[in-house]
Amino acid sequence: MSAFTNLEKVFHERGRLAICSALVAEGGLSFRQLQTACELTDGNLNRHLHALAELRIVEMFRKTGQGRPQTIVRITEDGRDRFLAYIDTLEEIVRDVQAAADVRRPGVLPAQLLPE
Amino acid sequence: MSAFTNLEKVFHERGRLAICSALVAEGGLSFRQLQTACELTDGNLNRHLHALAELRIVEMFRKTGQGRPQTIVRITEDGRDRFLAYIDTLEEIVRDVQAAADVRRPGVLPAQLLPE
Repeated sequence: MSAFTNLEKVFHERGRLAICSALVAEGGLSFRQLQTACELTDGNLNRHLHALAELRIVEMFRKTGQGRPQTIVRITEDGRDRFLAYIDTLEEIVRDVQAAADVRRPGVLPAQLLPE
Repeated sequence: MSAFTNLEKVFHERGRLAICSALVAEGGLSFRQLQTACELTDGNLNRHLHALAELRIVEMFRKTGQGRPQTIVRITEDGRDRFLAYIDTLEEIVRDVQAAADVRRPGVLPAQLLPE
């Protein structure tokens, strides 16, 4: 059952899973785009991004020019590698559960565990 | 990105994911077997099991007979259905991330997001 302990805690929280998935898919996103994609509040998104930046999983910079300055977020190469490794562990868990569910009928208890 | 909000919170915590995976695979397990399978402390396992039992995802009973009485845990049919639906949502997320990672090279930022 070591797959579960291998699941990197830093990515497993649902908001962070959403953030990293969007960043892998889009390369980079503005804070606002990320917020729309992930359905997170300002505060929550901010908190997650700062934690992820501290771990060098994402990087942020200000983009100035025409219009309002924007905060742009992208996933680092190392962050991407680690996130994809986490996703592979998830895949392993999904496959194991689905394979086990196919062979065991629901509600049937092994004989040695039945009440006597 | 609604797949993330569809992820049932009750199953997503790593310990609970381990517990429900083991119960789907084995049908039923004693508290001790479950503890070994999931690598959780007594207190943690207990806490998760009581929360899951309150939601009727698992049920527990005492098995008496020869030797020490044991606590047996099994997943309910409804709990199994809900857990497998959660696993299907995870699968969808894994597939989407892997497909996106295949088409987008790492570290390339869309032109409109580049610093000017």
